[in-house]
Amino acid sequence: MKKIINDPSTVVAESLRGMAVAHADLIRVVEEPALVVRSDAPVQGKVGIVSGGGSGHEPLHGGFVGKGMLDAACPGAVFTSPTPDQVQAAIEQVHGGAGILLVVKNYTGDVLNFETAAELAAAEEIDVRTVVIDDDVAVKDSTYTAGRRGVGGTVLLEKIAGAAAERGDDLDTVERVANTVIANVRSMGIALTAPTVPHVGEPSFDLPDDEMEVGIGIHGEPGRARMPAEGADGIVARLLEPIVTDLPFGSGDRVVLFTNSMGATPLIELYLAHGIAERLLAERGIVVERRLVGPFITSLEMQGMSFTLLKVDDELLELWDAPVHTPALRWGA
Amino acid sequence: MKKIINDPSTVVAESLRGMAVAHADLIRVVEEPALVVRSDAPVQGKVGIVSGGGSGHEPLHGGFVGKGMLDAACPGAVFTSPTPDQVQAAIEQVHGGAGILLVVKNYTGDVLNFETAAELAAAEEIDVRTVVIDDDVAVKDSTYTAGRRGVGGTVLLEKIAGAAAERGDDLDTVERVANTVIANVRSMGIALTAPTVPHVGEPSFDLPDDEMEVGIGIHGEPGRARMPAEGADGIVARLLEPIVTDLPFGSGDRVVLFTNSMGATPLIELYLAHGIAERLLAERGIVVERRLVGPFITSLEMQGMSFTLLKVDDELLELWDAPVHTPALRWGA
Repeated sequence: MKKIINDPSTVVAESLRGMAVAHADLIRVVEEPALVVRSDAPVQGKVGIVSGGGSGHEPLHGGFVGKGMLDAACPGAVFTSPTPDQVQAAIEQVHGGAGILLVVKNYTGDVLNFETAAELAAAEEIDVRTVVIDDDVAVKDSTYTAGRRGVGGTVLLEKIAGAAAERGDDLDTVERVANTVIANVRSMGIALTAPTVPHVGEPSFDLPDDEMEVGIGIHGEPGRARMPAEGADGIVARLLEPIVTDLPFGSGDRVVLFTNSMGATPLIELYLAHGIAERLLAERGIVVERRLVGPFITSLEMQGMSFTLLKVDDELLELWDAPVHTPALRWGA
Repeated sequence: MKKIINDPSTVVAESLRGMAVAHADLIRVVEEPALVVRSDAPVQGKVGIVSGGGSGHEPLHGGFVGKGMLDAACPGAVFTSPTPDQVQAAIEQVHGGAGILLVVKNYTGDVLNFETAAELAAAEEIDVRTVVIDDDVAVKDSTYTAGRRGVGGTVLLEKIAGAAAERGDDLDTVERVANTVIANVRSMGIALTAPTVPHVGEPSFDLPDDEMEVGIGIHGEPGRARMPAEGADGIVARLLEPIVTDLPFGSGDRVVLFTNSMGATPLIELYLAHGIAERLLAERGIVVERRLVGPFITSLEMQGMSFTLLKVDDELLELWDAPVHTPALRWGA
């Protein structure tokens, strides 16, 4: 295992320490339990948005804490759910009197631990709602899930629900917006190589040099099929087809297209794939209104990529365009 | 070789096509010869800033085209200098009457081809100046250089010189600012794995699983030493020491610290290393005024990282903080 770390048991804590000094203008880091919190939280009268999950998917979620997106993120150990007390502490740190929305990716451990935290917060008479995102069309049930996995759609959901909360929407509205995103977003990914979890010390799976894993999960969970590696045209078509036909997305639909690197796939390949995707969607009459291209939900140093497609209307587009000031996404005044 | 590409000979052109649709609000792409140009170029009365180099270091340079940074970038084939006619075409596209600054990383092919282009432009009576950046303290001469290589300092130079041009400084002043950056910036990097150039098809070098290459170049050129892989504390100290002692940077100096991923090193490791660097610099009394952390000058899917340290005064800091709107760096109104 080759990694720039000191000790697998301190990777997350040490990484958060570096993140705290790198972005002191936007976030603060709580060490025990581990939290990334918006620097001006709690914002009185604003719905607080809390997410989290296993570390190793950076910049998700801590990189999306800040104005216009998350109020707090709960980083678990690498590829491991955060604990209920982390989530409970996050809720208490960011509660500004208007309630809390928990954004949970659909993995059994995450759902359970966020649910426990929600119950603890409810006992303190904080109004907590939970939305569970399950946008991965690759498989029905998976290694760590009942039902579909939550993947790239999470980034778009956090941006859009965060903007709704920032403009002052109440908890009912923010929850509705989040569920609208969930209903309209679909994703699928592919891996060319495996990630290595620091405390495991060896690749999560073996993938021969001439094969790829289609429908991979963000923890390297098996997907739909392992098959001979193919060219970019084939890969892009193979990923987009199940996404488009699932919702389905049809001619005239307006979308946000998110082309994501799983970590080690470089921008030169990602832009290449993005260009092919734009062409294939145009051929179907699907109108790409906005794009996001880069490594925003990763699997450590895995080579691979995913596409996420979100059907949008004017309201969702306005929320997408609203200002955001976080370590990983930043635009607007 | 596992890459999301169709054909090694069309990688750069196809990637640029995807980049063009992804960022149509900021840039336009010229196909023949290949250029990335600021969408509103030429800006009349503004000094034009042109850079470029081999592809494979994304987001450098095309990702830094836009308001407040570059007017045009000339992408060569992967790890190959752009041609003189590319650079000449870029100069013609962005010349707004106030002259052109060429930002060149110190590699023999780049220096030669930019120089030829500058001579061609001079024949058209365009005032063209050239600055050559050579910030890598690792080695004196190298595989592709006479003298030191140009690496991470290029990103900081392009941001700061771009801001000077944007605020309306004349060519003399922009050139002076760029040379001030060159005089005050130092870098060094390390590799844990090798990159694979698409048209070569195999890793650029062999690096056993328990070794690292210290002082690596951004094309995988050999550095100072190959040695047993060590922990993050050791790596960070080993990179910072030669940087700090070279300029030298001393107690009370104010700096921008740029912690860069060579591509496949994930953010979780990069933040960890960044935190250690901040601590080591604080121990020396060096004051980190601003930070940049992420993959901004890469070597395809190489695992590794580099540090860049720039000594700043109030003027350079003001230029660093000025608004920038590019695909890869974006802040301010």
